Amino acid sequence: MLRVSWFWELLPEQKIIEEKILNIIKTSYKKIWYTSIETPAVEKNSVLTAKWWWESLKQIFWLYGLTQWCEKDTKKYSLHFDLTVPFARYVIDHRNELIFPFKRNQIQKVRRWERPQRWRFRELYQADIDVIWEEKDNKNYLFYDAETIFTIVNTLEEIFKTVNIDKTTFININHKKLINWFLKHIELKNIKGKITNLIDKKDKISKQDFIKELGNLNINKEKQGKIIEFTNIETFNIQEIKKLNINNEEWNNWIKDIEDILEILEQLWIKDKVKINLSIMRGLDYYTGMVFETFIEWERNLWSIASWWRYENFTSFIDSKSFFSWVGWSIWISRLESYIFEKLETNQKTSSEYLLINFKETQKKVLKLYKKFIEQWKYIEYYPEPDKLWKQFKYADKKWIKYCIILWEQELQEWQYQIKNMENWESFYKNL
Amino acid sequence: MLRVSWFWELLPEQKIIEEKILNIIKTSYKKIWYTSIETPAVEKNSVLTAKWWWESLKQIFWLYGLTQWCEKDTKKYSLHFDLTVPFARYVIDHRNELIFPFKRNQIQKVRRWERPQRWRFRELYQADIDVIWEEKDNKNYLFYDAETIFTIVNTLEEIFKTVNIDKTTFININHKKLINWFLKHIELKNIKGKITNLIDKKDKISKQDFIKELGNLNINKEKQGKIIEFTNIETFNIQEIKKLNINNEEWNNWIKDIEDILEILEQLWIKDKVKINLSIMRGLDYYTGMVFETFIEWERNLWSIASWWRYENFTSFIDSKSFFSWVGWSIWISRLESYIFEKLETNQKTSSEYLLINFKETQKKVLKLYKKFIEQWKYIEYYPEPDKLWKQFKYADKKWIKYCIILWEQELQEWQYQIKNMENWESFYKNL
Repeated sequence: MLRVSWFWELLPEQKIIEEKILNIIKTSYKKIWYTSIETPAVEKNSVLTAKWWWESLKQIFWLYGLTQWCEKDTKKYSLHFDLTVPFARYVIDHRNELIFPFKRNQIQKVRRWERPQRWRFRELYQADIDVIWEEKDNKNYLFYDAETIFTIVNTLEEIFKTVNIDKTTFININHKKLINWFLKHIELKNIKGKITNLIDKKDKISKQDFIKELGNLNINKEKQGKIIEFTNIETFNIQEIKKLNINNEEWNNWIKDIEDILEILEQLWIKDKVKINLSIMRGLDYYTGMVFETFIEWERNLWSIASWWRYENFTSFIDSKSFFSWVGWSIWISRLESYIFEKLETNQKTSSEYLLINFKETQKKVLKLYKKFIEQWKYIEYYPEPDKLWKQFKYADKKWIKYCIILWEQELQEWQYQIKNMENWESFYKNL
Repeated sequence: MLRVSWFWELLPEQKIIEEKILNIIKTSYKKIWYTSIETPAVEKNSVLTAKWWWESLKQIFWLYGLTQWCEKDTKKYSLHFDLTVPFARYVIDHRNELIFPFKRNQIQKVRRWERPQRWRFRELYQADIDVIWEEKDNKNYLFYDAETIFTIVNTLEEIFKTVNIDKTTFININHKKLINWFLKHIELKNIKGKITNLIDKKDKISKQDFIKELGNLNINKEKQGKIIEFTNIETFNIQEIKKLNINNEEWNNWIKDIEDILEILEQLWIKDKVKINLSIMRGLDYYTGMVFETFIEWERNLWSIASWWRYENFTSFIDSKSFFSWVGWSIWISRLESYIFEKLETNQKTSSEYLLINFKETQKKVLKLYKKFIEQWKYIEYYPEPDKLWKQFKYADKKWIKYCIILWEQELQEWQYQIKNMENWESFYKNL
């Protein structure tokens, strides 16, 4: 392989499917008026590492050109590792030209310098939607949380339908602040970080190991039980959480937020896709509100294929004079694709449907037919050179082309052309 | 600006147009069965610099990750500067999985470390089509030369139609071997390189300067006249070239090639788009056959917006055991776009057509309507929060949204909703 390792690339028959997926996502995002933007693959290091200095520094691809040292601007550049930081930078750079709330979609590849592992790549497609506005928290904007969930659910369902995989997706919803109040309630707030890290990997370890590690944190049996009860909650019904009976004004506020979102989702008829799951944590500490993860039905042990965030005041890390809040979702296309390619057999080597047979004697006539097919938006391919008929049929078979178009003496006499179905070998005729 | 300079990015209203253009190109390429591929942005330096070592080295963006030095594979990587070299590498890597002749389209951004100037960028979109086969020259494959011309002409015409710019494009065609035989004929083959370099910049300098520089090469008046006569030929008619009367078997062969291509183009009804122009040279020496450049009508002083190549044995520079020939075209999208954005006024800030007015009292009713519109694939946007009606109208105006959807007490009573046209202020009603 001359290709750089861990930089994935698809064969043509896989790319046909990827293009379908990208089209569905793009159309589905635009349908709910997320306007498109695209940012350069390259950003300044000062922007990329503004928020998580060391975390980012480790995973960026640094760039330099041979002549760079001669230029005045000696700041270093790198490839973007996600679409969130570039979007924040875009909003700051163009804040006077944009209208807020600004809803955008962005589908691009990102590159990460990380140790590759299954379903992680050094180059991957992400498909993001975000809504950004210039104020602080505004309860009305909970609509956008619901709307993004609605969009992601619709998009994923549409993708599975198109590739003919009989799976549905469900979304796990949680609120980061709930665990805060819960831990305060059981008086363990001092080791919050350690507990949330542990909960974050709960799905990947056994129940015994989870309990053992809780013990290692010097948590007594009674509190262990409460944590397990709390993190086991996985329900479509908000009442289950109210039963926890943690009466506190702030806790009640967050519960109200979830309730409001679920109510909007009910209006949009997709509430049954959304499950409350109190064990969803998400590593990074910049998610200030609700967090969501999306899983494929019955494939819970797989990585999440889409996730959600809400930030307050994210842009200020890049530019201290900017204050924006936002909610957003990302679909991890590369991960979703890996799953699809594992399930799917792909044989179609081309998107062409017709093969135009090439005979020296009728080359001129055939070209007019060729042009006609193209004008009618039919996918047609012209066999490269005059050759034996069986060879041309064999080529059509090899490429999974369904029909061959034949135009020779007999057809010419009757001013017709022949269409041969390569599956059942039947022919029919049409006028030239 | 926090953005890295010379890395261009579009505003949402421009991106709407770019997406249209990209869609047209993609559809048009696929219509003539160029299957899609996409290669990583990153290639090994040994691949990128295999053919033109210094030329490439100068213009690549080198990459490194912090942990790179710990890895075994210490070969360096860079960003690709075109789509041709990566495609050659793709064909070599996947030769056992592809079916030849292999026709592919590839639309991606490339990055170049070059001194920026007008209509050149450090990151730019290219849209390539290529046909590649495993043999040497095959006269039948002249069909592909014609077919690629046909595709490019159709695509460009379609783009100008869509963005409503009343321009047509024409293609300049030449054969690199013609100048060889011509120079041999007038006994100047020994300074061929100098003469072709001079011809290459003929369009950019005055006639006087051109003659002066011919003189500087110690070319006598008679031969100067012949070179000027030769390079002035710009015609739709192959007979003009035959008149030059250079009788030589190889010369006649090349003329025959051009004639064959023009004949196929005549069958496809686009011959009037293709002009023979003997002054088209193209810098690099790897073009072994015909060369084409595409200009916008009356804008000849602009850079070419698409160009063509034919290589024999290109892949062997990367892998000495590979032998492939190919023909291909590239549309310089970024350059074409710059031209379009200069001509066009873009005001539409969003692709949404409807604004759903937000009143606290009817929020629930309205959400059902919102869902209905989305299901019908109508671009609708919901105003973010309950607010005064005039404010919501103003927002629609600012975003160039054509219709407002109003659902309030009066409408509810009659089980209807109101659609208000923001241009003429007229309303009509539809049943809920």
